[in-house]
Amino acid sequence: MQRPFVSLLTDFGARDASAAICRGVILGICPDAEILDITHEVRKFSIRDGALALWCALPYLPVGVHVGVVDPGVGTARRPVAIRVARGDVLIGPDNGLLVAAADRLGGLVAVRELADPAHRLAVVTSSFHGRDIFAPAAAHLATGVAFEALGPAVDVARLEPSPLPAPEHLPGGGLRTEIIYVDTFGNVKLSAMAADLEAVHRPGAAPVGSGTRIAVRFDDDRTLELPWATTFGEVPRGRPLLYADSYDRLCIAVNQGSAATELGLADGLAMEIRTA
Amino acid sequence: MQRPFVSLLTDFGARDASAAICRGVILGICPDAEILDITHEVRKFSIRDGALALWCALPYLPVGVHVGVVDPGVGTARRPVAIRVARGDVLIGPDNGLLVAAADRLGGLVAVRELADPAHRLAVVTSSFHGRDIFAPAAAHLATGVAFEALGPAVDVARLEPSPLPAPEHLPGGGLRTEIIYVDTFGNVKLSAMAADLEAVHRPGAAPVGSGTRIAVRFDDDRTLELPWATTFGEVPRGRPLLYADSYDRLCIAVNQGSAATELGLADGLAMEIRTA
Amino acid sequence: MQRPFVSLLTDFGARDASAAICRGVILGICPDAEILDITHEVRKFSIRDGALALWCALPYLPVGVHVGVVDPGVGTARRPVAIRVARGDVLIGPDNGLLVAAADRLGGLVAVRELADPAHRLAVVTSSFHGRDIFAPAAAHLATGVAFEALGPAVDVARLEPSPLPAPEHLPGGGLRTEIIYVDTFGNVKLSAMAADLEAVHRPGAAPVGSGTRIAVRFDDDRTLELPWATTFGEVPRGRPLLYADSYDRLCIAVNQGSAATELGLADGLAMEIRTA
Repeated sequence: MQRPFVSLLTDFGARDASAAICRGVILGICPDAEILDITHEVRKFSIRDGALALWCALPYLPVGVHVGVVDPGVGTARRPVAIRVARGDVLIGPDNGLLVAAADRLGGLVAVRELADPAHRLAVVTSSFHGRDIFAPAAAHLATGVAFEALGPAVDVARLEPSPLPAPEHLPGGGLRTEIIYVDTFGNVKLSAMAADLEAVHRPGAAPVGSGTRIAVRFDDDRTLELPWATTFGEVPRGRPLLYADSYDRLCIAVNQGSAATELGLADGLAMEIRTA
Repeated sequence: MQRPFVSLLTDFGARDASAAICRGVILGICPDAEILDITHEVRKFSIRDGALALWCALPYLPVGVHVGVVDPGVGTARRPVAIRVARGDVLIGPDNGLLVAAADRLGGLVAVRELADPAHRLAVVTSSFHGRDIFAPAAAHLATGVAFEALGPAVDVARLEPSPLPAPEHLPGGGLRTEIIYVDTFGNVKLSAMAADLEAVHRPGAAPVGSGTRIAVRFDDDRTLELPWATTFGEVPRGRPLLYADSYDRLCIAVNQGSAATELGLADGLAMEIRTA
Repeated sequence: MQRPFVSLLTDFGARDASAAICRGVILGICPDAEILDITHEVRKFSIRDGALALWCALPYLPVGVHVGVVDPGVGTARRPVAIRVARGDVLIGPDNGLLVAAADRLGGLVAVRELADPAHRLAVVTSSFHGRDIFAPAAAHLATGVAFEALGPAVDVARLEPSPLPAPEHLPGGGLRTEIIYVDTFGNVKLSAMAADLEAVHRPGAAPVGSGTRIAVRFDDDRTLELPWATTFGEVPRGRPLLYADSYDRLCIAVNQGSAATELGLADGLAMEIRTA
């Protein structure tokens, strides 16, 4: 018999005990849970960073219960929710947009409940640690077999907060308007656009986008950059920039064996226009 | 049948392999142990930070064996000990005060043993890695069912090193003398005093401390601060300071969606007097 | 029945979801795997740091499958390999020297296979995330009982990339030429030489190297340092330097309760000559 699967993602940080406490609470309720920490180093209060990490990770994780806590509004009126998705998972966290993109990627939202039933919370619910008091217990109770509907009243899917991940724009003249949404720990710069977006605005009739295709970038701070499309980092010399589709098919700017963020001076939020030359 | 539960807390850091090696040693001795890492990012040599993390975490963890290693005296005469507590757990680590506050919080110390029996250590005990050679093996042997008494000779509870966590002082004139004992990864500033301490020195007959109660703080560096008591961060505007009881009922100074440590220039060890206005 | 054991070591960083995704992929293929994270904070692209961490950790871990991914050449021609060692483990990762020293320490390499069989990879193999697409799946399939030989064609052991860990040199005049290979999170400075190397160049007939033996160091930047051999940090006053054999019998320079790297200005790669006085 397989152990029920629970994943955790928070901005609690590795130094504090908070993330471990959530794990402990889950094991107290569901001792045979298999718990996986996606990360607890999400940038503080960055719902968008957390949303992207869940979007990346969940398709590669076993079907289970996934808890996300990046929650600047903890203790305010924002609802704690559980979202059932088409793949069979349940996503748990605050209703602040954190879970929506990942839910879409797991086949879409099927039903939403508010985490309201005191039987599936800790006995004392504080105003500043809902990860421990509300979210982890709800996940653990689901893992033990509690029915999704028992968590609390139904919530209208249409009334959930939307995802903070911005959509790219296909420009009439053939370019792509996009922005930097994340800088990973290697310094690779991830954009809001996917490889398919670039293909869609590529000149009709031209050779498909591939190794060596020249890409022109104009950042909103007026800097410009021309770089090659590459399918592997090694196609450009060490220290040189490239545009590539990362392992999730997302457009990224990188520097071979270096940090694009540092070496090109790029940061989260900077917008740009991209076109194939 | 439930897996035996073991937790680990150290200052070994996430980059080095040391914490993982302790986990590996435990699994080598007790393959079905369920191991939880509380944190391995305790500030180097800070027995107090480690003591607070254990105090916070252990009440929320399953009953089991808990290993704490913040051990500036490794290789010296300080004793390696196991402490049995009223809740049924055993706490393992150096006799330097690290484990005492957590033991109190789990119902109090029932018995103490020195980790002396070579049968429950690794075959080679080095002078600089007792986490691997002494503490992890002792925990694993307990997890497999070895008797607590088999670890080594009894130690007089009264002779254990005391906790490094300072007690607050209730001032005759109605104030509270306390100090900063920890700054968490959000920049929230944790004090040595609990919410109950503030209630105890509050003006008799006044309305109980609650949302909006004005709090006057005089730091030992002569700065003063007046801030409101708040039950949720959202009761003050973004970027504004507040005093609140954290999710462990400890007094904390915070800034809504900001870092109190950075924005108010507060650091570990700073003492202060607090009174309700 | 014991759970199959898998360990992971990468330079993916704790903030990104990549390491957790590898864990998720393994659990998807082998749900009862016991997975241990050695570290995911290896310095980016530092094959040597990763090689040392594996060399330290693997002897203390249960026999199993060990995945190492520090892979600046991902997407280039370097081969993905599995190495069977005498102890019974299989080491998995890129053929760039990362795994060799650890394999030697587990009894030596017995056989090597290239990870070529598509049945033991993910369905889509990207050019930038072989940890997820090739290495984790291969480990998981082995953990489920797939035969080592099924992973792909045999590779000639003699053709593997050598270890990046340098060997020390025994100087004719009785000294030792060595270099700094790692600075740990405490600031302890680890050398390429072992305690046995120092013994080997010690004056014949002199008392064996032990507490208080004077050690003379001449760094390649012309600085000199004289420090005592110590068997425990506490043998020197707080803040004073010492040379000692770490818990793996490796020569290290340390400062009692301080950072040798910071206080003595020492960094990775600096070479030196050491002799007993």
